[in-house]
Amino acid sequence: MNDAALQLARGLVEPHMIDAAHEAVRSNASLVHSLIAQRRMPAEPWPRPLIVQFLHQLAAMDTNNFAGHAGGGEREGRVYSSLVAERHYYMTHGIGRSGDLTADQPKAAGSSLLAKLNNAMVLDALRTAGLTKTEAAVTLPMATGMSLALVLQAVRQSRPDPAAARYVIWPRIDQKTSLKCIATAGLMPIVVELAPAAVKSARDGAASCCSELTMLSVRPDDVAAAIARIATSDPAGVNAIVCVLSTTSCFAPRVPDDTLAIARVCLANSVPLVVNNAYGLQSRAITKRLDAALALGGVAAFVQSGDKNFLTPVGGAVVAGRKSVVAAVSALYPGRASAAPIVDLFITLLEMGRSGWTKLHRDRVDLHEVFLQRAAAFAEARGEELLQHPGNDISIAMTLRNWRQHSALRGAASEADGASPPVTDATALGAHLFRHRVTGPKVVLSAANNSKTVCGIRFVGYGAHGSVARDGGDAPPLLVLACGVGMTAAELELLFARLEAAYPLLKQA
Amino acid sequence: MNDAALQLARGLVEPHMIDAAHEAVRSNASLVHSLIAQRRMPAEPWPRPLIVQFLHQLAAMDTNNFAGHAGGGEREGRVYSSLVAERHYYMTHGIGRSGDLTADQPKAAGSSLLAKLNNAMVLDALRTAGLTKTEAAVTLPMATGMSLALVLQAVRQSRPDPAAARYVIWPRIDQKTSLKCIATAGLMPIVVELAPAAVKSARDGAASCCSELTMLSVRPDDVAAAIARIATSDPAGVNAIVCVLSTTSCFAPRVPDDTLAIARVCLANSVPLVVNNAYGLQSRAITKRLDAALALGGVAAFVQSGDKNFLTPVGGAVVAGRKSVVAAVSALYPGRASAAPIVDLFITLLEMGRSGWTKLHRDRVDLHEVFLQRAAAFAEARGEELLQHPGNDISIAMTLRNWRQHSALRGAASEADGASPPVTDATALGAHLFRHRVTGPKVVLSAANNSKTVCGIRFVGYGAHGSVARDGGDAPPLLVLACGVGMTAAELELLFARLEAAYPLLKQA
Amino acid sequence: MNDAALQLARGLVEPHMIDAAHEAVRSNASLVHSLIAQRRMPAEPWPRPLIVQFLHQLAAMDTNNFAGHAGGGEREGRVYSSLVAERHYYMTHGIGRSGDLTADQPKAAGSSLLAKLNNAMVLDALRTAGLTKTEAAVTLPMATGMSLALVLQAVRQSRPDPAAARYVIWPRIDQKTSLKCIATAGLMPIVVELAPAAVKSARDGAASCCSELTMLSVRPDDVAAAIARIATSDPAGVNAIVCVLSTTSCFAPRVPDDTLAIARVCLANSVPLVVNNAYGLQSRAITKRLDAALALGGVAAFVQSGDKNFLTPVGGAVVAGRKSVVAAVSALYPGRASAAPIVDLFITLLEMGRSGWTKLHRDRVDLHEVFLQRAAAFAEARGEELLQHPGNDISIAMTLRNWRQHSALRGAASEADGASPPVTDATALGAHLFRHRVTGPKVVLSAANNSKTVCGIRFVGYGAHGSVARDGGDAPPLLVLACGVGMTAAELELLFARLEAAYPLLKQA
Amino acid sequence: MNDAALQLARGLVEPHMIDAAHEAVRSNASLVHSLIAQRRMPAEPWPRPLIVQFLHQLAAMDTNNFAGHAGGGEREGRVYSSLVAERHYYMTHGIGRSGDLTADQPKAAGSSLLAKLNNAMVLDALRTAGLTKTEAAVTLPMATGMSLALVLQAVRQSRPDPAAARYVIWPRIDQKTSLKCIATAGLMPIVVELAPAAVKSARDGAASCCSELTMLSVRPDDVAAAIARIATSDPAGVNAIVCVLSTTSCFAPRVPDDTLAIARVCLANSVPLVVNNAYGLQSRAITKRLDAALALGGVAAFVQSGDKNFLTPVGGAVVAGRKSVVAAVSALYPGRASAAPIVDLFITLLEMGRSGWTKLHRDRVDLHEVFLQRAAAFAEARGEELLQHPGNDISIAMTLRNWRQHSALRGAASEADGASPPVTDATALGAHLFRHRVTGPKVVLSAANNSKTVCGIRFVGYGAHGSVARDGGDAPPLLVLACGVGMTAAELELLFARLEAAYPLLKQA
Repeated sequence: MNDAALQLARGLVEPHMIDAAHEAVRSNASLVHSLIAQRRMPAEPWPRPLIVQFLHQLAAMDTNNFAGHAGGGEREGRVYSSLVAERHYYMTHGIGRSGDLTADQPKAAGSSLLAKLNNAMVLDALRTAGLTKTEAAVTLPMATGMSLALVLQAVRQSRPDPAAARYVIWPRIDQKTSLKCIATAGLMPIVVELAPAAVKSARDGAASCCSELTMLSVRPDDVAAAIARIATSDPAGVNAIVCVLSTTSCFAPRVPDDTLAIARVCLANSVPLVVNNAYGLQSRAITKRLDAALALGGVAAFVQSGDKNFLTPVGGAVVAGRKSVVAAVSALYPGRASAAPIVDLFITLLEMGRSGWTKLHRDRVDLHEVFLQRAAAFAEARGEELLQHPGNDISIAMTLRNWRQHSALRGAASEADGASPPVTDATALGAHLFRHRVTGPKVVLSAANNSKTVCGIRFVGYGAHGSVARDGGDAPPLLVLACGVGMTAAELELLFARLEAAYPLLKQA
Repeated sequence: MNDAALQLARGLVEPHMIDAAHEAVRSNASLVHSLIAQRRMPAEPWPRPLIVQFLHQLAAMDTNNFAGHAGGGEREGRVYSSLVAERHYYMTHGIGRSGDLTADQPKAAGSSLLAKLNNAMVLDALRTAGLTKTEAAVTLPMATGMSLALVLQAVRQSRPDPAAARYVIWPRIDQKTSLKCIATAGLMPIVVELAPAAVKSARDGAASCCSELTMLSVRPDDVAAAIARIATSDPAGVNAIVCVLSTTSCFAPRVPDDTLAIARVCLANSVPLVVNNAYGLQSRAITKRLDAALALGGVAAFVQSGDKNFLTPVGGAVVAGRKSVVAAVSALYPGRASAAPIVDLFITLLEMGRSGWTKLHRDRVDLHEVFLQRAAAFAEARGEELLQHPGNDISIAMTLRNWRQHSALRGAASEADGASPPVTDATALGAHLFRHRVTGPKVVLSAANNSKTVCGIRFVGYGAHGSVARDGGDAPPLLVLACGVGMTAAELELLFARLEAAYPLLKQA
Repeated sequence: MNDAALQLARGLVEPHMIDAAHEAVRSNASLVHSLIAQRRMPAEPWPRPLIVQFLHQLAAMDTNNFAGHAGGGEREGRVYSSLVAERHYYMTHGIGRSGDLTADQPKAAGSSLLAKLNNAMVLDALRTAGLTKTEAAVTLPMATGMSLALVLQAVRQSRPDPAAARYVIWPRIDQKTSLKCIATAGLMPIVVELAPAAVKSARDGAASCCSELTMLSVRPDDVAAAIARIATSDPAGVNAIVCVLSTTSCFAPRVPDDTLAIARVCLANSVPLVVNNAYGLQSRAITKRLDAALALGGVAAFVQSGDKNFLTPVGGAVVAGRKSVVAAVSALYPGRASAAPIVDLFITLLEMGRSGWTKLHRDRVDLHEVFLQRAAAFAEARGEELLQHPGNDISIAMTLRNWRQHSALRGAASEADGASPPVTDATALGAHLFRHRVTGPKVVLSAANNSKTVCGIRFVGYGAHGSVARDGGDAPPLLVLACGVGMTAAELELLFARLEAAYPLLKQA
Repeated sequence: MNDAALQLARGLVEPHMIDAAHEAVRSNASLVHSLIAQRRMPAEPWPRPLIVQFLHQLAAMDTNNFAGHAGGGEREGRVYSSLVAERHYYMTHGIGRSGDLTADQPKAAGSSLLAKLNNAMVLDALRTAGLTKTEAAVTLPMATGMSLALVLQAVRQSRPDPAAARYVIWPRIDQKTSLKCIATAGLMPIVVELAPAAVKSARDGAASCCSELTMLSVRPDDVAAAIARIATSDPAGVNAIVCVLSTTSCFAPRVPDDTLAIARVCLANSVPLVVNNAYGLQSRAITKRLDAALALGGVAAFVQSGDKNFLTPVGGAVVAGRKSVVAAVSALYPGRASAAPIVDLFITLLEMGRSGWTKLHRDRVDLHEVFLQRAAAFAEARGEELLQHPGNDISIAMTLRNWRQHSALRGAASEADGASPPVTDATALGAHLFRHRVTGPKVVLSAANNSKTVCGIRFVGYGAHGSVARDGGDAPPLLVLACGVGMTAAELELLFARLEAAYPLLKQA
């Protein structure tokens, strides 16, 4: 209600009450005003009623909601089901237009404004999370993999000879989407295998080299070598390379790439660097190096999941980086797109405010400490080895050498327990946990005889990103666990309680 | 968003789009402005997004939604469940305050404004429905019966000697709530029995006296006689009478009271008249006479159901009539009250607009014609008699003389069909219909041996409002059907299809 | 989805996933089963998706939602607006039927089941909160005041000579609804004035008699005396008394009634006791004595607000006590009623679980400690006196002797500060706080010259429940504050921050 | 509630009511059962409460909603905002998994089932709409353009020599997305210009050749010629061609492609045919030929918009056609994806049922008749020529030769009316209509001097798909209007009323 309406309302409701309400309305209006003027996340969470009201105010700016609207086109934002209309707050035109995903949609000024404000808040959120040098950001209503495919295609078209550019240098990560996005873009991956991660364990001060197992990471030199190989073998030289596609957030025993070192390699070779930062915003270890790489100017774009970083439903991704690359990605997207993931993110950022966003990360770091302690104690009590690395402050791996599936878990049918090969047992642990409402933990087999073909490429030790055993030794099965953003202390307790039930302490025999 | 925010938005979204949106925002604002200024239903339905936005704007005026609100009282509108908060659009303080149900609730300017606007729109709706002389109206968040109890109590307290006022003259209607509300108010009913309704049938031109059955109505003279009886027998004289409680909308074979004639009796005796107009707004036969009674000044208050007239969920009632009585009722209500039925009505009236409200009644009148034709054909084909009366243009009654429950309906177990007493059969028809998803039709037995005690009073032919048989003849069971507001043509077809299946045409034997 | 559907789904989705889902579905079903079987609050909160699903399952049991339903009555649960239908989860028939509020509504088996389960859970909640001897409870969809009026009327009708029963013995409490409900029931209050509360202060060990001010409470002897007065003066003797209406939860400086002692008086005189337990469930001081009174059999009914105890929107009340009285109240309610407050409570109790309900009270007790410390420090620093009493563990009163409205608060217009009489100033503090988004705190004037007439009765020191000054001394204005259930620590901080800003520490002069 | 719970409920609610409710629950269960068993749209609309209940039942099958769930992965479906969770019915895991968009998402059995059922219903809807030969269909949570890009990439990878396949033969259509999707896929368009559409007018029997203007369509021979050109010039021969990308639904003056004839050309040349059937499901003219082409086996895939055909918010597209191609598209999509557009479609199809879906098309055809009459009368009265063609039964074009912007429309500032060049005027009409809440109608200039460069290609007469003037004559500006699915009769009236106001009948001069 505007001032005139509130003035009129004084004829119906006691003026001093209307005055107080008017003050609150003005205060809400000033929050809205600040958002549009400053284009940043609000410092503090918005009250939820204001968020909902603002969504409806934006909807009122879309032509399909105009009183007395007449449509004579083929798409007028008509929606059959009012259930559907309501869950989208009556914004039905999507975002963007055929020319550009970030272009204003002429029939939907409100949705367009929402998309602009969302992108502005997302940029602020990235900077707040430590990526201070980010120039631009856009939210795509597609999940990370599809967004990466679009980014690769956009980067390809920016290369000196787009028709010749076809290779993507790709440090291995055993997650299908990360590889498939290259094929989706119609390009070819050049796999760079990982090497033992040669750093000391942060937790016990002992060198990890004392263990027979190590985590795995990519060596920047190996990336440089892969570039050189293509540059010398392909007629187009380095122009045959679209980019390096590096990955930060990843499951143990892989360590996030050292994006700063790789950026240096890329800059030296004039090869663009695209970073798959899937769920990296929650990790200082990741953002610190990525920000330095940004400062250096060595990152074309980095992409992150909406759901894994901002706790929205699956379906959106944030592409950020150089202004020109972000613009090219937006312009490459053909046609309008779903507003749903954008609206989800928009609501979430207003409901978090900067304080909530920061707290989310602080809480995770605190919980991660507990997570490590619990995991270490769990492993030690069972004679297992914990693989962790300061570079991966999200997930850990743990050996499963001694686990024998408790007979009770398998029912009376399986008698000959001792005879079962450990490998089978280990996999069964994952299924067992799933049946007991634990999702997330994965059992992976890093042994050389466990290989898998993905997108036509054969990978040894698939799931473990390679083999964690030194010197060709026998690699044990691993249990991989993550302490991701949004996890609660109660959930962590539940997780370990179920793990302990599934892998009980056995009496000495 | 206010003008300043929209101005700012031009920096983010193309100005000509913002201009068009601004125009729409202004147009919406002018609808809101008109509502507050004119205090009438909108001529046309509001767009739904505007309704929802307005609800949230009102919510923002309540203190519990103020950003930075601190509460140091015992009731601060705190709500545990956000599911609950949302379904009430974050308006949690209810309406009214201890002094008066229509008083502004100091912690909730928005809810208070909503309640005021709602009462204003309801008054407009009553007038639009034909009750042009209504002075005031208030929506109570209690269903009709409880509202009537409150009205009776308020009217009692307005009598010359409240302590002596204890009788309510009550033309019989066989609906429990109508009687129970008198007891709830702590008063005593004086029953006026009905008499044969002496008008001609509107449908066939033949005098209904040619039939052996008639519908039933109250004779104003009998009301006058009841008043006289109390006035002469009670020490307090006419002051012992709180009011006459007359009923309009009712199930056949009862005919709505002639409120105009009764109002004349009341005026002549200085006895207040309260009208239970439960679902009478949809009927011109009812509203015409009631409006004339209002014009005469002979009606203290009339009460109608929210759900049965306005198609909202059960829970609200509209008390209307003389300004002073409406005010007394509001002032008698102790404390704050649920806003839910008020919000339901508010949404509904905005979503209808005057055009929708009028159409609702027009559609019902049209469908009622079809209803009568279908019922007449149904009855004739089965040798049954139809009881209808121009004064009751909502429901009809039909004899069930020949119905024998089809053996198939009762299953193989009941063999000796012919032997079953008809009375039992008739009741079974209702249960049968219920099992076949037909609700509403009632089988009633008007015979003298069917009596029931309600609130300590014994009624003969309960359900039929008395006996429809002339000269003490044997009254057949009746099937009662209504064509109420909101019924659709498809529903009517379904109803008769099911009736036909339940009461099939039998082969001549 | 039932077992057969899930079995079929295995043809579409991987069987082991369906199996896990089936397990979850079964687990949910067992929660539902337990609720219906045990008729108690769930031990732990239900997941929200389950709550919403259960509401829709219940709705599916109401006839208006039957596929292929045909309605031929005057009320078929038709709803005009789908917005309205949705917010009620498509349950539109309300609860109860004309015979009884707790009777099953034949057209709405789901709503009826919901109402039954809700009443069962509410009874469990009362017992869990310490009222272990409660026999029965019913949720009325009316706020406390109107519910009390209904209870009074029901109790009156249970008296030996209902027509003669007209007085309600009423220990004074300065809250309008508490008095008005008597008038609404058509009865007459007999006021029992309060006396200084003769207990020691729990906080400093010093006798409160050392102060010149005391809190106020009713003396059971004064209640007995009032009963005797009526019994001897009215022709009907003690039968002229409907009941004693005692109040527990109340604002300082009033102390909650000693319901145990009053119950003894009532039992001794064969007078029913009705307790207005408005927001008493959160207080152990209150529930302990009330439970003892229940054990004694001396309480006919006690009534509490839905919103103030269960954190639902205003509009419902819980009537509990003797089975026969609760049944009589339910039977007295004429007609069906709004389901909205019942649904709100139902959702809330499922979302709380017993653990959440208990935690709510524990949290309040913890916060109340902080509240007292903050208030004591605030008062001491300003030379004010704190009035508190172990019997009132919700609210406190504080003198406002030294407060002078800071000139800045009043603007430039008011020059002659020092000249303003303190009394005026004190009232201004309340308005000032309201303008600064603090609601709840009240400034009351207990001086003898501050009197007010409510329901025709003149009260001295209205708002303060009498005068807190001993020996007719000059009573200072008081600031009254409450620490109610649902308050958060952050809100408490905000409250005192605003109070400190409004009543700053002045430099010594 | 399952049978056991309902059995228990008989202890709380009257058994005969529970029985009726049980019957309704069983009836609902049988609708669910049929859906899963038959995998087709329901014949009749589902009741909305059932739809909502089913969505929550599906949600309960997703792990994030399991009671007692513990997550130890990096993505556990956690959602920050309950507002967001609710609008997605608590389904947060999206659909698909890294391997395939149609693969089951292990953490979300319910969402997976929903996606499967949705695809099955969509296939049924396509067949019901006349595309009886469709083998398979998948809903992509991306709008049409992006979906087309993915289809092109998938088709390319199925070609004999994917690395060599780079051309897309593209009959011109002046809609950016249609062209841009080729670039997004990293491919190169070969434009086939349109020719005068040489058919007779269906409306007046007169040969359209008598007019100086014609509509435009692609000649299958020109497509064949383009194929031949590439096949002979590129080293890879016909393998250099990815596919022909033909367009059906389009704005006048373009005529939908004769997909049957083009399919024959493609089959003859072993070139895949992809059809952009953007909003073609509503047109019998389009579906008849496309179905014949499908029968012939000449269509690899056809793609349609979710919003334009099914009246959902923008964001989804349906890819259909050959089973192998649909599977390849699904497998190419990297990673999980937003479920939002799928859920929208799912709700809509259940709410429509087959009867609603069919009615939607029937209503549009009826309205289209009115549309043509209104347009013809409008044009004739103003001396304008109507361009329409039986092949385009959605939109028409109309000349704007005589329109002069009325001075009142332009404000007082523009005096010298007669001097303005007509071209400028025509464009202003569109802006004028937009300001008057008419969206959709477009003013296009087909003259040779109106050219535009899109994706690096220069198009003459952009917007008009070429020039409608025969023999190089002067082409007038055109007003293009559509009568799309979902338009209402009232909206059509409003549209022409506004058109008439914007282009008033001038007095003879």
